[in-house]
Amino acid sequence: MSTAWTARYALRTKGITSSQIRDLLKITQRSGMISFAGGLPAPDVFPIQRFEEACHKVLTQQASSALQYGATEGYEPLRELIANNMARYGIKAKAENVLITSGSQQALDLIGKLFINAGDRVLVEAPTYLGALQAFNVYGAEYVSVPVDDDGLRTELVEKPLRSGPKFMYILPNFQNPAGTTLSEGRRHQLVLLADKYGIPIVEDDPYGQLRYEGEHLPPLVVLDRENLRRDNGYSIGNVIYLSTFSKTLAPGLRLGWIVAPPEIISKLAQLKQGADLHTSTFTQFVAYEVARDGFLDQHVKLIRQVYRERRDVMLQSLREFFPPTVTWTHPQGGLFLWVTLPAGLDMQAIFQSAVEHNVVFVPGDSFYANDVRGNGGREGSRHMRLNFSNASPEQIREGIGRLATAVKSHAPAMTLRSEMPVEV
Amino acid sequence: MSTAWTARYALRTKGITSSQIRDLLKITQRSGMISFAGGLPAPDVFPIQRFEEACHKVLTQQASSALQYGATEGYEPLRELIANNMARYGIKAKAENVLITSGSQQALDLIGKLFINAGDRVLVEAPTYLGALQAFNVYGAEYVSVPVDDDGLRTELVEKPLRSGPKFMYILPNFQNPAGTTLSEGRRHQLVLLADKYGIPIVEDDPYGQLRYEGEHLPPLVVLDRENLRRDNGYSIGNVIYLSTFSKTLAPGLRLGWIVAPPEIISKLAQLKQGADLHTSTFTQFVAYEVARDGFLDQHVKLIRQVYRERRDVMLQSLREFFPPTVTWTHPQGGLFLWVTLPAGLDMQAIFQSAVEHNVVFVPGDSFYANDVRGNGGREGSRHMRLNFSNASPEQIREGIGRLATAVKSHAPAMTLRSEMPVEV
Repeated sequence: MSTAWTARYALRTKGITSSQIRDLLKITQRSGMISFAGGLPAPDVFPIQRFEEACHKVLTQQASSALQYGATEGYEPLRELIANNMARYGIKAKAENVLITSGSQQALDLIGKLFINAGDRVLVEAPTYLGALQAFNVYGAEYVSVPVDDDGLRTELVEKPLRSGPKFMYILPNFQNPAGTTLSEGRRHQLVLLADKYGIPIVEDDPYGQLRYEGEHLPPLVVLDRENLRRDNGYSIGNVIYLSTFSKTLAPGLRLGWIVAPPEIISKLAQLKQGADLHTSTFTQFVAYEVARDGFLDQHVKLIRQVYRERRDVMLQSLREFFPPTVTWTHPQGGLFLWVTLPAGLDMQAIFQSAVEHNVVFVPGDSFYANDVRGNGGREGSRHMRLNFSNASPEQIREGIGRLATAVKSHAPAMTLRSEMPVEV
Repeated sequence: MSTAWTARYALRTKGITSSQIRDLLKITQRSGMISFAGGLPAPDVFPIQRFEEACHKVLTQQASSALQYGATEGYEPLRELIANNMARYGIKAKAENVLITSGSQQALDLIGKLFINAGDRVLVEAPTYLGALQAFNVYGAEYVSVPVDDDGLRTELVEKPLRSGPKFMYILPNFQNPAGTTLSEGRRHQLVLLADKYGIPIVEDDPYGQLRYEGEHLPPLVVLDRENLRRDNGYSIGNVIYLSTFSKTLAPGLRLGWIVAPPEIISKLAQLKQGADLHTSTFTQFVAYEVARDGFLDQHVKLIRQVYRERRDVMLQSLREFFPPTVTWTHPQGGLFLWVTLPAGLDMQAIFQSAVEHNVVFVPGDSFYANDVRGNGGREGSRHMRLNFSNASPEQIREGIGRLATAVKSHAPAMTLRSEMPVEV
């Protein structure tokens, strides 16, 4: 149906299409389907009882405020709780450094709105979080991408693209989506020094940082930036804007994320947020505060770590069991995802279709590459699959990896006999 | 504090400043202050008990879905409930015509994102809703404005600006914010005919439509458009996109609004929404559905009408009592606001300061005028005050109007003796 409207789309919406992941989520609804596709937390670990108590308390004691319009910056006690929580990771923020957003996705949208003019470049990892590309695309961003390896972004390759003057770098240092890799401490130091040397700031996206299943917590970029820049002026933020969320620790259905930045930037972002949605739901903010307070959040995160660590281990074990050594995968120290690399030359679309027929889904890697202005983007993904291990049960994970191996092997006959695998793959 | 960030703002954010209303809301927190400034619903009419029951039900029966990620378009039962509810106003929408937004403000942002290129013109009413201007401004909108009178937008003045090719018209037909006026039925017919004649579509913003305290409900533009265009193809939408919200009928703290449009437009808007915040809180959507269902919403709206009608009447009565006939005001048939016009030549900023000293606040009219490309915007507001009557109690309203009259009179000595008022004002 054509109306006066359809001839009137803005230029910026050209080529905007529904994300592959979003369409995938419809397939995952099918009965019997085992999904490694979404980035969904396990509903088994939602703290439902605690939510019930929180709703009751908020509605009996604070309904007049909790159901009313609120401040654009967010509910003050929640901003303080977030600031206090981050302090243990060395991030010395105050409430005034924290803007509550409608999920971390809104943080990306507001940052795009505040900083990106059409044609501006953003330095991203290859692969990177698809939602960030969607948020930045509408503002006309172009991309320079730098590959990641097992130690995260390859910082030795960053200097040249930085000279081309990107507006900022968008970096996921911990258990990256989609690759599951973590930026090493050495590279973190290098990256903040490069940011300072070239005057190119960093958006540090850290939705999974608390979900570490092994190894030591590494210092966030925002902390190293302060140390390097010796800008210890009470705020720990100079060149780095830090993002995080309650989606992976409490519940994504709340749509509660936050931005940590200097007050001047928070003020600008809040003005944009006012035009975008006035403020984030006061009700969910009050409820999240009551759920998280008095140490509950930390205690709950420990439970999540335990549950997800087991699921990751089952997935790693199943991959070893069902796939030949020509197939490799990352070993994530935390987060929700791992990244499988198949031998070259296979038809990923055909494998995906076979997987669906076998009642298992994943996200093909292509989705996670920006269109690089230098023209090499996209193709790297055709050998990769992103697998989520947080949402399915251990039994489903084992069963699903078996199905996936069957689907892959049906398009890679050589795999069925390991000894006969071609040497070059 | 200056960082690498502050030199990097996008061009679109130039001149973006915190809204006067937002700053005002801070003043209204002062103890003893009577506020006619915000557009806040009365917390006394929040259906708290019903919210408690809804939260309990959702968390005991549907927590796995209600706390999880959800569809960008919104929670299907809520979309259906909205479609069914609108049917009684003649709007024949189906669930697929409804996009749930994070408050009606997000609807405005998404519409700006989808349709406005920098330099595009939008035809707005003078005065108009400030939040729409904030949403459209970031996309580089320019404005042509057409004055309203007691029958709403003066449609006889619309044709000339339509010839200058605005991208769309932004119209609040019912109990307009800020003026409180309602577009007459005759003018509604004229407007949809003009939209069709010039191929300039309409965004119909209707946050208050259900809150009518006297007179008959008038047909929405979206309905007249269908009738006029004889496009009765199951969807009632051709040239008109319709917006509404639960903020004034259930609670603004939920941040739940919606857009009604043809499926093709809904699909585009949903793609943009995905990049903006993935989806609106599933939890608040589930809760709102449980609150609204089984006829509760209608029943509750009747209560709100009763409470707000009384407050409107008290405000009208108090204005008659405390102000001389040289001061005029609109008689809103519904909604939350009325619009006071003072004699010419008074210093509105000084009056505002006096009002604050007398512990009463309002919003000076200047805020509600777009910067017209033809250069006549802004100044019309200096004689006007927007008064909200939904949030204060009847006793507070009477007391507050008394204080306001004192403040105004302190800057308009002639007012103290009605017989001596200058003839020209």
